Amino acid sequence: MRVYFTFEPRPDLREPLLTDFPQLDFVFDSGLSNEELQQADILVTYGEDLTEENIQYATKLKWIFVASAGIEKMPARAIMERGILVSNVRGIHKTPMAESMLAHILAIKRALPWMYEQQKKSEWSKKAKQTELRDSTALILGPGAIGSEVGRLLQAFGVTTIGCNRSGKEAAYMDSMISFAQLKEALPNADIVISVLPKTPETTHLLKEEHFVAMKSSAIFMNFGRGNLVDEKVLIQAIATEQIGYAVLDVFEVEPLSSDSPLWSFSNVIVSPHISSHSSRYVERSLEIFKPSLTKWLKGDTDLENVMDLSRGY
Amino acid sequence: MRVYFTFEPRPDLREPLLTDFPQLDFVFDSGLSNEELQQADILVTYGEDLTEENIQYATKLKWIFVASAGIEKMPARAIMERGILVSNVRGIHKTPMAESMLAHILAIKRALPWMYEQQKKSEWSKKAKQTELRDSTALILGPGAIGSEVGRLLQAFGVTTIGCNRSGKEAAYMDSMISFAQLKEALPNADIVISVLPKTPETTHLLKEEHFVAMKSSAIFMNFGRGNLVDEKVLIQAIATEQIGYAVLDVFEVEPLSSDSPLWSFSNVIVSPHISSHSSRYVERSLEIFKPSLTKWLKGDTDLENVMDLSRGY
Repeated sequence: MRVYFTFEPRPDLREPLLTDFPQLDFVFDSGLSNEELQQADILVTYGEDLTEENIQYATKLKWIFVASAGIEKMPARAIMERGILVSNVRGIHKTPMAESMLAHILAIKRALPWMYEQQKKSEWSKKAKQTELRDSTALILGPGAIGSEVGRLLQAFGVTTIGCNRSGKEAAYMDSMISFAQLKEALPNADIVISVLPKTPETTHLLKEEHFVAMKSSAIFMNFGRGNLVDEKVLIQAIATEQIGYAVLDVFEVEPLSSDSPLWSFSNVIVSPHISSHSSRYVERSLEIFKPSLTKWLKGDTDLENVMDLSRGY
Repeated sequence: MRVYFTFEPRPDLREPLLTDFPQLDFVFDSGLSNEELQQADILVTYGEDLTEENIQYATKLKWIFVASAGIEKMPARAIMERGILVSNVRGIHKTPMAESMLAHILAIKRALPWMYEQQKKSEWSKKAKQTELRDSTALILGPGAIGSEVGRLLQAFGVTTIGCNRSGKEAAYMDSMISFAQLKEALPNADIVISVLPKTPETTHLLKEEHFVAMKSSAIFMNFGRGNLVDEKVLIQAIATEQIGYAVLDVFEVEPLSSDSPLWSFSNVIVSPHISSHSSRYVERSLEIFKPSLTKWLKGDTDLENVMDLSRGY
């Protein structure tokens, strides 16, 4: 049985795979080739390289392990038609992403961008405009694995968390829950508005001008989900007209963000080039999810961790 | 009875004082004058302005409420000789300081300084060197009110905390404790070394070259206590020779830090101009401590919160 990696884990991460699964034939490549795909029973990929055409070559393929959370770039229909199982590393992002979000929030609250600029001028000044995170309120759109981890950390800082999902159904580490329908009325209470929503037809342009108007003028808006959440023109307008106080953006309607986008140059916008989930421990963590799934798979058990429903998009 | 403030709280914070204590005569000034001091029974000050000479004028003074944590600038001997009670706002700093420390740690781990520079160039690059805070180890010198609050937050991020004080006696939110004598042997285990120690004869130059040699070359060293902890020449040497990975400094041997100090220009040093405790809610929080103490005082009860022992210096 052949396991085809379209990326190359470090030798210290690769070795245990070879040792733990001597019966398998592993191929580690730095990209996707149709010839290799034809031989593969299992594909391990970041998921961004796979096209509908590739799937036609993958005649033996039964399981795709996606070392990523978003699958919107994958040829869903072709994969479903072929009955290939897809599982991913949902949850793997929660630690680096939640740490990134807290880093950005705290950096803003404690005036780090200002401090760094002062330092460049060798200028000792105590005129920082610092506030506290404690006792503020955060509204979290999409309190799943990542959103709940952010909620857990925010609660440790004394922040009240309001979760918001389609149904308003309970989620971990949320002090209260609302549904999408109640969003507009809840926004005026939030000091921080965070989205970690996936890209689905329902989340596309979910946030409209009226939502930004409803936010506090001091609100920190953070999009760490997908760029489809808001029409970038609406967002830029909200920033330019000071409907919100700060925006931290890890995702964009079109990525990479064009170098002539006005978003780069606002003093109260942070552009994070879709790297909040990155971590030096990423591959290590992916393999920690992959290995038990592979053990199950070899026993004929297809009830793997994080099996995806491609028809729903997550 | 006259209460003399050497700073001017905002009107919305001043009003409740006048309302709650109508029997008292409040004076709010933007500095210290000997004439006013002569009339004062209670002095409310940041403590930095008071000299031995001032105390000679303060013939009626019985209580100094210091809206600050450090008292090393106060004329301790003169105050003790006169039997004036001193209390401070110990603990008030814990929220803003702990938030600042977490902000700096997370900003480094998640490559925010790098990200801000990329943004200035409108450059979309994913080449950030990001690591995770989770599963690291922090050694906290001085796990008192502030140190324990940092410990609490670090534990929420999955960090193992080692507290270090004179005796090695238990402290809150520390997974283990060591004494000053055991410091050198514990340092190689720490990814983050944080000091929040006060200035005392014992803490002066407590950290020597051998301690920096013992730290991991990737260690983040943070001094948020007092600048006397380490000879700045030793610290600069440790940074220049890469004995440590990063230094975040809120305090210095001489403040303000001279504009020609090499500390300003290292790429792996953050100069925070002794502002980690600042907060837009500082005065509000000080008054929340002052008011119950004042109520007690008026009933003749001198067992106030945070009475200081000037002979020990904290």
